[in-house]
Amino acid sequence: MTNASGRDDATFPQTPVNQVKRAPDRGRYDKKTIYEILDAALICHIAYVVDGRPYCTPTSFWREGDRLYWHGSSASRMIRAQGRGIDVCLTVTHLDALVMARSGFHHSVNYRSAMVFGQAHVIEEAEEKLRLMDRFIDRVYPGRSRVIRPPTVQEIKATTMIGMEIETASGKVRDKHVADDEADYEAVPAWSALYPVSQILGAPSECPRQRPGLARPDEMADFAPGARLDEVMAKAHRRTFR
Amino acid sequence: MTNASGRDDATFPQTPVNQVKRAPDRGRYDKKTIYEILDAALICHIAYVVDGRPYCTPTSFWREGDRLYWHGSSASRMIRAQGRGIDVCLTVTHLDALVMARSGFHHSVNYRSAMVFGQAHVIEEAEEKLRLMDRFIDRVYPGRSRVIRPPTVQEIKATTMIGMEIETASGKVRDKHVADDEADYEAVPAWSALYPVSQILGAPSECPRQRPGLARPDEMADFAPGARLDEVMAKAHRRTFR
Repeated sequence: MTNASGRDDATFPQTPVNQVKRAPDRGRYDKKTIYEILDAALICHIAYVVDGRPYCTPTSFWREGDRLYWHGSSASRMIRAQGRGIDVCLTVTHLDALVMARSGFHHSVNYRSAMVFGQAHVIEEAEEKLRLMDRFIDRVYPGRSRVIRPPTVQEIKATTMIGMEIETASGKVRDKHVADDEADYEAVPAWSALYPVSQILGAPSECPRQRPGLARPDEMADFAPGARLDEVMAKAHRRTFR
Repeated sequence: MTNASGRDDATFPQTPVNQVKRAPDRGRYDKKTIYEILDAALICHIAYVVDGRPYCTPTSFWREGDRLYWHGSSASRMIRAQGRGIDVCLTVTHLDALVMARSGFHHSVNYRSAMVFGQAHVIEEAEEKLRLMDRFIDRVYPGRSRVIRPPTVQEIKATTMIGMEIETASGKVRDKHVADDEADYEAVPAWSALYPVSQILGAPSECPRQRPGLARPDEMADFAPGARLDEVMAKAHRRTFR
């Protein structure tokens, strides 16, 4: 996919900002891979700079097209104070396995991660902000914004929504078994294995003050006890944004 | 616990850097809570600044006393270039539950997170570096550094170990059920619940080139299929650093 200027729109150009430096063979620059990693996540970590000092804040977020959104953070105060966007790096990491090798050097983990770079802005426009507040719920629980109480004026005021155009990004993926130095397989008597890791949903604990007669909505069928959160989030994202 | 200067050594003083700003009632400043959150984690996210731009890198790490350690990152090049430590914020997040409420405003997640601030330095001293490379393995797999092949000179050279004295830190914890506005429990017919989330180990997949006759070592007993990774990591930390 190339655009009028001949640029490949499906891939982020490699620059000093987004280039994967350690283990560059694990680097991924195509949007499809990077967006799949983002859309399978509920939580990200956002780095930003205040008074020259870095901060790393965990928060929920979601992607719509080439934009990312999240809600109020310590950064919002600073964005407002500056009256303009601030640089952020938003990172998502899925841990998929522990990998035990025959040397310390080859111990590893399997993972899928994405680092996204751009400028974060506060969404001030009231209608857009309200739309995003609903999207924030529906991204996790498709259709739920229709059944809950709508936000009050006070709640809208108390909520800061932040948006960011994706300027550039990179993904990084390790997805393989134990990979030792050839001589070590035979020479080193260390039991070696890969342990899968996944983030799993448990059985729902209903609100103790549930209104009598309310049943779990069909829309929650994917939230099955034992389901993988990354798969549930990816499905929810497809249902809400397809 | 107070020291000679009357300062409470068991708690980090609240300053503009580490103060929890959103939902301050969830803030924790005591070392016990913060260190438990750190020691239950294998992966952290580290924010640092290069050329005025923030980066957020996921990596493995561990705590020894009031210090944190991790290995080579893009930051290491910069630390060396500067010839001095650089400011970092190292953040750990455990996601514990999804919390569905009757209003968007009260949707939440349960979590335990910690943000740690300090200056990262490259560990150049050869003996200390070698000790840390073993610790890095033993922190996850207690005792394993004794059974694997020791690092080669080339591997030691290719590995950057980074250390950081904890200057200040804060924790943040949400650990409660659905908490709605009083009127909404009765008025809003939205099925509401809490879904527990945990990171779980699967059954080990042995290296296909396992040496015949090698059995899983007793030290791996905690790594049971279905075990929670945070609990396994907390136990491993206690076994290695007690």
